[in-house]
Amino acid sequence: PKFGKGLLNITAADSSFTMKIGLRFQNLMISNWSQDENKSFQDPEFNFLIRRARLKFDGYAFSPNLIYKFELGLSNRDMSGGITSDYSNAPRYILDASVLYKFSENWAIQFGQGKLPGNRERVISSGNLQFVDRSRLNSRYTLDRDFGVMLKHESKILNNFIVKEVFSLSQGEGRNITSGNKGGLDYTFRVEAFPFGEFKSKGDYIGSAIVREAIPKLSIGVTYDINVNTARERGQGGSFIPFEGGFEGRTLYTWFVDMMFKYEGFSMMGEYANKKAEGDDPVVLVDGNEIGTFYTGTGINLQAGYFLNKIHEVAFRYTYINPDAAVDQDETRYTLGFSRFIVGHKLKLQTDVTYRDRSVSNDEIYWRFQMDLHF
Amino acid sequence: PKFGKGLLNITAADSSFTMKIGLRFQNLMISNWSQDENKSFQDPEFNFLIRRARLKFDGYAFSPNLIYKFELGLSNRDMSGGITSDYSNAPRYILDASVLYKFSENWAIQFGQGKLPGNRERVISSGNLQFVDRSRLNSRYTLDRDFGVMLKHESKILNNFIVKEVFSLSQGEGRNITSGNKGGLDYTFRVEAFPFGEFKSKGDYIGSAIVREAIPKLSIGVTYDINVNTARERGQGGSFIPFEGGFEGRTLYTWFVDMMFKYEGFSMMGEYANKKAEGDDPVVLVDGNEIGTFYTGTGINLQAGYFLNKIHEVAFRYTYINPDAAVDQDETRYTLGFSRFIVGHKLKLQTDVTYRDRSVSNDEIYWRFQMDLHF
Amino acid sequence: PKFGKGLLNITAADSSFTMKIGLRFQNLMISNWSQDENKSFQDPEFNFLIRRARLKFDGYAFSPNLIYKFELGLSNRDMSGGITSDYSNAPRYILDASVLYKFSENWAIQFGQGKLPGNRERVISSGNLQFVDRSRLNSRYTLDRDFGVMLKHESKILNNFIVKEVFSLSQGEGRNITSGNKGGLDYTFRVEAFPFGEFKSKGDYIGSAIVREAIPKLSIGVTYDINVNTARERGQGGSFIPFEGGFEGRTLYTWFVDMMFKYEGFSMMGEYANKKAEGDDPVVLVDGNEIGTFYTGTGINLQAGYFLNKIHEVAFRYTYINPDAAVDQDETRYTLGFSRFIVGHKLKLQTDVTYRDRSVSNDEIYWRFQMDLHF
Repeated sequence: PKFGKGLLNITAADSSFTMKIGLRFQNLMISNWSQDENKSFQDPEFNFLIRRARLKFDGYAFSPNLIYKFELGLSNRDMSGGITSDYSNAPRYILDASVLYKFSENWAIQFGQGKLPGNRERVISSGNLQFVDRSRLNSRYTLDRDFGVMLKHESKILNNFIVKEVFSLSQGEGRNITSGNKGGLDYTFRVEAFPFGEFKSKGDYIGSAIVREAIPKLSIGVTYDINVNTARERGQGGSFIPFEGGFEGRTLYTWFVDMMFKYEGFSMMGEYANKKAEGDDPVVLVDGNEIGTFYTGTGINLQAGYFLNKIHEVAFRYTYINPDAAVDQDETRYTLGFSRFIVGHKLKLQTDVTYRDRSVSNDEIYWRFQMDLHF
Repeated sequence: PKFGKGLLNITAADSSFTMKIGLRFQNLMISNWSQDENKSFQDPEFNFLIRRARLKFDGYAFSPNLIYKFELGLSNRDMSGGITSDYSNAPRYILDASVLYKFSENWAIQFGQGKLPGNRERVISSGNLQFVDRSRLNSRYTLDRDFGVMLKHESKILNNFIVKEVFSLSQGEGRNITSGNKGGLDYTFRVEAFPFGEFKSKGDYIGSAIVREAIPKLSIGVTYDINVNTARERGQGGSFIPFEGGFEGRTLYTWFVDMMFKYEGFSMMGEYANKKAEGDDPVVLVDGNEIGTFYTGTGINLQAGYFLNKIHEVAFRYTYINPDAAVDQDETRYTLGFSRFIVGHKLKLQTDVTYRDRSVSNDEIYWRFQMDLHF
Repeated sequence: PKFGKGLLNITAADSSFTMKIGLRFQNLMISNWSQDENKSFQDPEFNFLIRRARLKFDGYAFSPNLIYKFELGLSNRDMSGGITSDYSNAPRYILDASVLYKFSENWAIQFGQGKLPGNRERVISSGNLQFVDRSRLNSRYTLDRDFGVMLKHESKILNNFIVKEVFSLSQGEGRNITSGNKGGLDYTFRVEAFPFGEFKSKGDYIGSAIVREAIPKLSIGVTYDINVNTARERGQGGSFIPFEGGFEGRTLYTWFVDMMFKYEGFSMMGEYANKKAEGDDPVVLVDGNEIGTFYTGTGINLQAGYFLNKIHEVAFRYTYINPDAAVDQDETRYTLGFSRFIVGHKLKLQTDVTYRDRSVSNDEIYWRFQMDLHF
């Protein structure tokens, strides 16, 4: 194959299966300055690391209607948290392991582990981001990955007006759980509208206007999620809230409204998130003592970018997080990014600088530089 | 290659090596009901997980007589228990890493890590099982994997009567041990008889009558194992029994007698297991205090299946475990299974339901559904 | 490809990238005897293990001047120590993840994780060693791997006289750190001279005279390293020295002088190491209590081998370690090795026997046997 199209692209001689094997890694350098008591920014701290590294297998098996995906996370940050018995004391190595069966032209069913149909920024591959990394909205409120069953449908309402719906039923405690379901299950509904038709090359889930749209394209998505009696602070993510050998669960309700717009060298993405705990109370008290807090509140993320020429893009991002008062302080982040897309997202250099304004803590500035290489 | 025959099947242009690369995963959903005090089964618990995921490399290198096997376990359950210093605090990622050299027509020597020549059900690949998973006999008494040297021999006694023998010398504490041998070594002897000749396509170690035998085929195997002064509850498996910085070991003696029979769409497999500790005493006392117990006793597993048509099989399994009284309670399991072998074991849907009758604890019913995809 | 040249050797149809995929494992058996109080060596201890197993990807991407390397360690010993929060509680799975860009004929810049330009024995791949494993000098004083940026230059001074220089800037705490830089950065300088020209097939970094040199070849290298305020006992390796939630750092200064000589079936390698802590004081005291010690001192390693015929080599190694008195005792090791290079380093059997003479502890003899298989 060509560079960026998989390191191997196998088609069986009898067409009984296909497989694309992908390999990628992201090398990252961070430098950040915290405001000291004199309001000045001094003495940066450094952090150099392999942010992500992935090995991915996808294609169809037996029939073109049976599509599989299998992805491994290889870096430490990809696996973090492997010393909990809920993960069999083993690293969380597998990201995706799912099979999707298209049982009619418009319907498909998926079984296994993968990303839930949550906020758009999360579903965009970490290899296709406009900035060095996702926004704070995502890290606080995303539904992330889980194991379960999804039903997918899409239809053309009018000429060019497409609507896609997904319903998902999953365990609710995130990926790589081997200790079974805690509390109840998780139910996710998502609907997406494409008033001007499909994006080119699945561009509604790719950051930046890598492939230019000659006419404006828009996608609007809405997700609603009910995670019954979940055991982790952020539902599928965060620490478990343990209590006397078991755990103290609570039902979380999450809304996302998001959009992607692209036209020529311009792209814009926006998201609104809202997460509530049952009884509007995120704090877990036992005999008057706080043993944990679910991360609830709202957030907004807006970002837009413009290509200066074929391979250089400038982009700006505004993120505001407003967690419930008992949970965390408010935070605003302003990010200015610059990317050199040498071969689209497959070989790129990205840098961005962020000003973090927290209502209580000291302000912070951080600068990041990342190189991506994706076969 | 064709689907199910490896994702790659490499032969060097100069035939200096071959390699088959296999990838597979098993997605599993379990639902189980425990009997409550009113003897009724209510409120199921769920458990959705990637039960196994494997990446496998095998073939020959340099000479067709030098055969290697290298297999990685990728799921959390494949690696469990990686936070022990005996494993260098790292996950137990490698399953097989062995080289076998055929130094004459009937003799071969194998060096490295792999399955010991123990009970048949264990040696059958987890990708070729008749039910969703192996029986309770296996999980309690198997020898599992280890690191060492094996000597293999086979001979034709009469016309069609084949006999195979294996002798193995291994460390005795199971796979991925990096802290060296504890106590003594492990010695395993196995002999197998094929009164009606070899099975087609190695069917003596494949569950279900996937490849039909036109004439009845039978294999009978007997294993005897001596694990000198072992440090783990089940020899190669189970918890270490630590004592004052070291461990308290005991020699375990294990017998297995097993058989596989296949004829047309019918198959039957049976196993008997018997494990004893030296002095017939599995309990480890130090100054009158019990610090651990070796898992000893007997067990029997009988299972049979019949193909209703080309791809659908029904199967039944009876397992009875009778551990020594000081070790565990008796347990009987009845399992009814149904499989749809879309492409043999390579793409299949399996479901089974089990009734577990324990002599002391409450009874339990569990239902499992699993999808297997093997390249 | 041919055996030993990668399991796959991919070149994109449009030459937009190349990739060689390598797989290897080393199966090792050790037997060691400690001297008892009667000065006799009895009752050996055994240790059988998969010493190393690797999956490696390298080649160029987009342009022949952009060279990448990505290597995974698969065995427990390759990953050891994955339960520290500095590694995100995940195993240290990735060894190399780097990209090198040749921006002019003699200059290149490298970014990512990989081996520092330290002592020669360390930079020689573990798959190309003259003995079963590296010497004690290496395990005590090496700089190992780290994450950062390197600048590389080479030039021809005279006819055949080549000089290579490397400057590296790295985090200083070794590979797979996700918790950021501690203390200061690490600066490494290395210069190498080749008075009689380049070795064949990069033989200056390959153990044993696998490829024979018709005329004598010599390489001399000198490394100087300053690891500012490092937090680990051996700089990039060893335990962290924690103190009140943070750590107690100290700057380490390291010198290496090393050489490789090859002529026909003869090869010789030598190294001298010298590591000092700032203020010449390796002991960390807090309120008069010792909370840790940096590993400082000197060492020398000399080894030479001679091929008896095309595939058999005998080799001898002398290693003397003289750590600072507050750190550790003196130690001398004498090793006699014998190798059968069936297909060079790609398929080989190696055995060696070592006498360890420590100034305080009892003496020890250990014997090792290892099989290497490298695709």
